[in-house]
Amino acid sequence: MTAKTLPFTQAQLEAVAACVPTPFHIYDEAAMRKNAQAFYQAFSWVPGGFKNYFAVKALPNPYILEILRQEGVGGDCSSKAELLLCQATGITGENITFTSNDTPADEYQAAHALGAIINLDDISHLAFLETALGGKLPDVLCFRYNPGPLKAGNAIIGKPEEAKYGLTRPQLFEAYKQAKAKGVKRFGLHTMVASNELNPSYFLETAQMLFDLVVELHREGIRIEFVNLGGGIGIPYRPEQTAVDLPKLGESIKGAYERTIKAAGLDPLRITMECGRMITGPYGYLVSHVLHKKATYKNYLGLDACMANLMRPGMYGSYHHITVPAREGGARKVYDVTGSLCENNDKFAIDREIADPAIGDLVVIHDTGAHGHAMGFNYNGKLRSAEVLWQGGTQFKVIRRAESYADHFATLDYPGLKTAL
Amino acid sequence: MTAKTLPFTQAQLEAVAACVPTPFHIYDEAAMRKNAQAFYQAFSWVPGGFKNYFAVKALPNPYILEILRQEGVGGDCSSKAELLLCQATGITGENITFTSNDTPADEYQAAHALGAIINLDDISHLAFLETALGGKLPDVLCFRYNPGPLKAGNAIIGKPEEAKYGLTRPQLFEAYKQAKAKGVKRFGLHTMVASNELNPSYFLETAQMLFDLVVELHREGIRIEFVNLGGGIGIPYRPEQTAVDLPKLGESIKGAYERTIKAAGLDPLRITMECGRMITGPYGYLVSHVLHKKATYKNYLGLDACMANLMRPGMYGSYHHITVPAREGGARKVYDVTGSLCENNDKFAIDREIADPAIGDLVVIHDTGAHGHAMGFNYNGKLRSAEVLWQGGTQFKVIRRAESYADHFATLDYPGLKTAL
Repeated sequence: MTAKTLPFTQAQLEAVAACVPTPFHIYDEAAMRKNAQAFYQAFSWVPGGFKNYFAVKALPNPYILEILRQEGVGGDCSSKAELLLCQATGITGENITFTSNDTPADEYQAAHALGAIINLDDISHLAFLETALGGKLPDVLCFRYNPGPLKAGNAIIGKPEEAKYGLTRPQLFEAYKQAKAKGVKRFGLHTMVASNELNPSYFLETAQMLFDLVVELHREGIRIEFVNLGGGIGIPYRPEQTAVDLPKLGESIKGAYERTIKAAGLDPLRITMECGRMITGPYGYLVSHVLHKKATYKNYLGLDACMANLMRPGMYGSYHHITVPAREGGARKVYDVTGSLCENNDKFAIDREIADPAIGDLVVIHDTGAHGHAMGFNYNGKLRSAEVLWQGGTQFKVIRRAESYADHFATLDYPGLKTAL
Repeated sequence: MTAKTLPFTQAQLEAVAACVPTPFHIYDEAAMRKNAQAFYQAFSWVPGGFKNYFAVKALPNPYILEILRQEGVGGDCSSKAELLLCQATGITGENITFTSNDTPADEYQAAHALGAIINLDDISHLAFLETALGGKLPDVLCFRYNPGPLKAGNAIIGKPEEAKYGLTRPQLFEAYKQAKAKGVKRFGLHTMVASNELNPSYFLETAQMLFDLVVELHREGIRIEFVNLGGGIGIPYRPEQTAVDLPKLGESIKGAYERTIKAAGLDPLRITMECGRMITGPYGYLVSHVLHKKATYKNYLGLDACMANLMRPGMYGSYHHITVPAREGGARKVYDVTGSLCENNDKFAIDREIADPAIGDLVVIHDTGAHGHAMGFNYNGKLRSAEVLWQGGTQFKVIRRAESYADHFATLDYPGLKTAL
């Protein structure tokens, strides 16, 4: 069970909403820092050192990346834009992993120029990268392992053998051999087989799988310097769900490390992860006003936020908890909570019982700190919102302004449009 | 059956791709014009006049809207951005319908200022609109009817009683009564109960439903000046599908009109529609290069286009036909055709047999002229592409430039980012 409470009071939230037009995402800085610290604490036992590379796609805001950098968190990038964000926030060198797939040459070049650890998605990318970098591979390389049918699937990411990512087992062994022959000196091993998974044994199994591979690769003459267990630690979107117990997870992986890596004399091995969602997800909130109430075949609540601000419910049917600060504890009612997009899937909740708001009330949608603002589109001409960093009390900072119509039309060069704006 | 051919030759396409970096969407101007003309021809019998209001969200590019305006097509808007696009292209007054839901006051004001026909989604919006417009309703108003369980659902839009849109039957009658009492002089009646529907009888039933309502409303003292049958005419995305026979559809609706409207002495009645997809959908193509080929548990083709350019396959599992101009007629092979997004649903096709391309070949994805570029997001830091108007031969015009990283970061004010760019 997880208490879906808010970190700010109604009055504090109203103070922000009086300055920043709704909708906006607001992020709890102190909670993000505390969470990052707790995560690191759970893996402080790792003899070779532990690092989480934040999946930048989850919350690609430089102010957030800067906060995470201060907490020792690196950046996991899969595009040039994400590399630029890391560079801007002082996350450079091996504090970046570049885990991309179907990658163009210029993005490999950009990653290499920053000194990022490049994580190859396919054996054919070895030659592609070599050409892209003018014939010389980097000193350090990582490969993404896809265990295929050797590992059962997770609900969101699906069966590994149907995922486009990674190398098969025979390809993996061949790739290290080829890379070593081409002069690569240091090696990492990566996998990513889960997304939003709350079952901790899934991560223990993943760690064990990689530790075993490290031992096997060592027999083949490949010394792995670090493993990247991937991300995928889920968050309790629903009140009835429980967060992964990080200290317990750390302890269980420690056991596997000792039984496998230490026993094989391969200690110290660096352990890294690339969690995004669990780093920032629970500490973001989408704040909106009730614009309309409608009663037809069902009861509808119309917000001034829409799918452009948060795609997960409409795209995946995902649950996001909803709080009405002014009405909690009062009467409850079942609603479809909708946005204004001209698409019937623009619903934040379907048949959801919530505290019954009045028109004009603030409504808070939980757990938007990851894959929230970042996934927004401009379909229907909807503009993406501002992002706000909450710093306690009534202290806050706008860390991304809302889009304007001029932004929205920036790629159009049409004379009449300049007049209309 | 529909032949999924290309309007341009391989050489013509390569000439464009030599000037415009892939990926890009390219639109066939002549085919769009011809199609709009054929649509109008099929409804030229309407005694009160026929007009299609193009659903702007399908392809919100002012150059396209201008072409459609020249063919007599109006604009169906559901947001302020779409109203601005219409205004910019000279689509004004009653050539605009504003069919929005969960609408903020300023958007109603913008629509009214342009003289657009406002189509109300809920009975409560009557008072909301009156207040928004300073106490005076427009002379003309339309209401969106949701037949609920009185009409069976269509595959995409779902059951009408589960749709957030429109008024129930009792509300509809009450709304006209109230509007008339408040001084509204002219009335329209709208419904929209289908999306991407290829069964023509569905549209005949919809027309009959509205014609019957016109007669009933007349008995209640409400004279309907125009009906809007909505949009929803589908297109044959798959080769085995067949386009709706427009002349036949026009004829069948003519029969219903004569039996119902003429028989009741309510002729002439204006007939309007708000089709988007069938107007531009089949005449757009996403053009991409093959970047990588990968063989693991399946065979993968990696394009330089991704889900940011076309969401429908990843979001809805939609079929879009794929042509490899240089290889048609040659060997075929089964692929998952993927983009580079760090999401496993970034696939344009799964287990699809296509002409087997080589790395570097151009690949064309069909039917992207509606809900293609418009739905693109920037997730993973991916940039949206250019749009190109093909004018025959090697004549073309870039009608939207590709996004730059500066565009992508425009809403961020972070000092380090300016240095990184």
